[in-house]
Amino acid sequence: MATKGKLIGKMVIGQSGGPTAVINQSLVGAVLEARKQASITGILGARHGIAGIMKEDFIDLTKQSAEQLELVATTPAAALGSVRLKPGKAECEKVFEVFRKNDVRYFFYIGGNDSAETAFIIAEMAKEANYDFCTVHIPKTIDNDLKVTDHCPGFASAARFVALAFMGDDRDNRALSGIKVNVVMGRSAGFLTAASALARQAPDDGPHLIYLPERIFDIEKFQQDVRDAVGKYGRCVIAASEGITNKDGDPISTSGERDSHGNIQLSGSGALGDTLAALVKDAFPGQKVRVRADTFGYLQRSFPTIVSPVDAKEAREVGMYAVNHAANTGQPGSVAIRRLNSKPYASECFITPLSTVAKVATEMKDEYISATGNDITQAWLDYVAPLVGELPKMGRL
Amino acid sequence: MATKGKLIGKMVIGQSGGPTAVINQSLVGAVLEARKQASITGILGARHGIAGIMKEDFIDLTKQSAEQLELVATTPAAALGSVRLKPGKAECEKVFEVFRKNDVRYFFYIGGNDSAETAFIIAEMAKEANYDFCTVHIPKTIDNDLKVTDHCPGFASAARFVALAFMGDDRDNRALSGIKVNVVMGRSAGFLTAASALARQAPDDGPHLIYLPERIFDIEKFQQDVRDAVGKYGRCVIAASEGITNKDGDPISTSGERDSHGNIQLSGSGALGDTLAALVKDAFPGQKVRVRADTFGYLQRSFPTIVSPVDAKEAREVGMYAVNHAANTGQPGSVAIRRLNSKPYASECFITPLSTVAKVATEMKDEYISATGNDITQAWLDYVAPLVGELPKMGRL
Repeated sequence: MATKGKLIGKMVIGQSGGPTAVINQSLVGAVLEARKQASITGILGARHGIAGIMKEDFIDLTKQSAEQLELVATTPAAALGSVRLKPGKAECEKVFEVFRKNDVRYFFYIGGNDSAETAFIIAEMAKEANYDFCTVHIPKTIDNDLKVTDHCPGFASAARFVALAFMGDDRDNRALSGIKVNVVMGRSAGFLTAASALARQAPDDGPHLIYLPERIFDIEKFQQDVRDAVGKYGRCVIAASEGITNKDGDPISTSGERDSHGNIQLSGSGALGDTLAALVKDAFPGQKVRVRADTFGYLQRSFPTIVSPVDAKEAREVGMYAVNHAANTGQPGSVAIRRLNSKPYASECFITPLSTVAKVATEMKDEYISATGNDITQAWLDYVAPLVGELPKMGRL
Repeated sequence: MATKGKLIGKMVIGQSGGPTAVINQSLVGAVLEARKQASITGILGARHGIAGIMKEDFIDLTKQSAEQLELVATTPAAALGSVRLKPGKAECEKVFEVFRKNDVRYFFYIGGNDSAETAFIIAEMAKEANYDFCTVHIPKTIDNDLKVTDHCPGFASAARFVALAFMGDDRDNRALSGIKVNVVMGRSAGFLTAASALARQAPDDGPHLIYLPERIFDIEKFQQDVRDAVGKYGRCVIAASEGITNKDGDPISTSGERDSHGNIQLSGSGALGDTLAALVKDAFPGQKVRVRADTFGYLQRSFPTIVSPVDAKEAREVGMYAVNHAANTGQPGSVAIRRLNSKPYASECFITPLSTVAKVATEMKDEYISATGNDITQAWLDYVAPLVGELPKMGRL
């Protein structure tokens, strides 16, 4: 069926890793674009990513109504179901068996760097097996930690949630005073935690301290920072990444569990927030201080209606671009975003080799982090503000 | 200056207790209405409620621009600052000294039942002191636990946050599967936790189990409930009130701290969520189950942009009504809301004696809770849905 240099066959698309508020935009963008491509003869949605492919658990996306797909596009979390699974050799063989059997010539995998690695492994296996095949990774992660791309679809909507949450919580803390610790998602990169700084509209607005995984978290320094902030503002709002570690690289506090990628479980537990709250209390011996901790948790990545317009648009575009690229070139790769301008904001998609994105993640540039290590810089705000969209103005008396 | 039967003098307005997303609507409604009243000669905003009055820490609200006030109205949390303080005898004497000195003849206190009690005590003291004076309590609480009124301003916006959060989190849980515990605010009343049921749009949507403080929380029954839900849905999303207690009335888990009303601190800690997650793991001995817990925390009561339109409108109205009532009758009382119709929704304000609202709180009616004790009823949905406003439709494949 396939002729040399021109791939004709079905496509499989899957979603992987942690959901986001806009990952379904990428799915719907890819599906609607695929329907325009003569070389794509059918569209199979894999339920729960690689796990669904192995079980041939597909949803036929060839003929869903555009109306239904558009409703899915604005719905948070992965509509196909997601998975955290790195396929081993036996699993990859199974995947190929399924692909061959179903005449699948295109594979689109929407996810982060772990998912890019999966796509890369499968692309390599296809080459070895001499199977005419095209794999394209579609970027997605609220962590914003993929290499090459300016930023990752999913990040800006989560950043918008974090900014709004701090905006309201700072007013709450101002009303009842005290010290408030908020733990933000982000295993090894502080992008999302740093987005809390967008909540500031006046010089005394919180967050007053921001702790990122890119810097060593020193308990005594932290306690002194909090005392200083309370001395200055009479209160203190703190943004702490779930991924902060001490000088030995050990987490400050975790639930002790691991996910199926072998990563220590950080989210889905209030352990770190409660540990930091206890450290704050210890910083004020003999004093009655009101200390509270919240862990934003999964709400950050899947809250309906809190979506950055730029993020929704770009998430759709990376899906469309991936399919266009694959159908026109047959070449594997990962879609990335290039920022053309910040004011007014403009961007475009391009393709980078899978190997440049797979496995290894990136983190915040030094220029985005203050010299004190407990705050961000203007360069960071210039980078992040255009992505998140306009934020409401807070009134005060 | 004051003539018999007609109070002429300044007013003081304060905010008390936990902030909400719309408490500033009540403040601004009262202030703008007061400007129309010839008998109100000045408007003083007390910073941090009773605490500010004792220190004569006032903001003059007589002449702020309407534009600035409207911006405050749409800003979450208490713009005047809030407080948790029940005044004793010496404190009340100080309050009166300040009121007399400043020719204050009207006092409006925006808050929950603790705040209504403060207003009540001060009204009684004024009577004893033969000081011509009018105190009106303006209702506010996300807990929705005030007596007499159909519902409390502040509740519906928090309920909207909770409904949206569960809507997105149920999609997140569907995508990656497992068991998810979400802890919702509400010390002794389950209204806010019960609002999670608004997230359901299809029969298999979560939350699948809802635990309210109105029912005894039995650990073994909980574990069996979760096993049953996992058997039925292959996953489980749980809504648990922070106020759930065992058969002896003891909290399942707390941080051990107390607030200045002597209440045990429930919010601002992930302790209960983590305890429930551990109980869920114990319910599946020898099995690898993915269990996560989130505690929604302070985000529920002060998240910008997540506001119920009905709530914003009614919060404004209770503020206006309080001032109108006071200026026209000089009589103390608490403003309450009467529901006139559910479809289409319509309501009106009325006055109830302070004694009917002060101190004692209410809880969910039996008809709102399922016979099994782990879910709500259609009657509850009929009650709550019109308050929260239209919710986005979730798409699925």
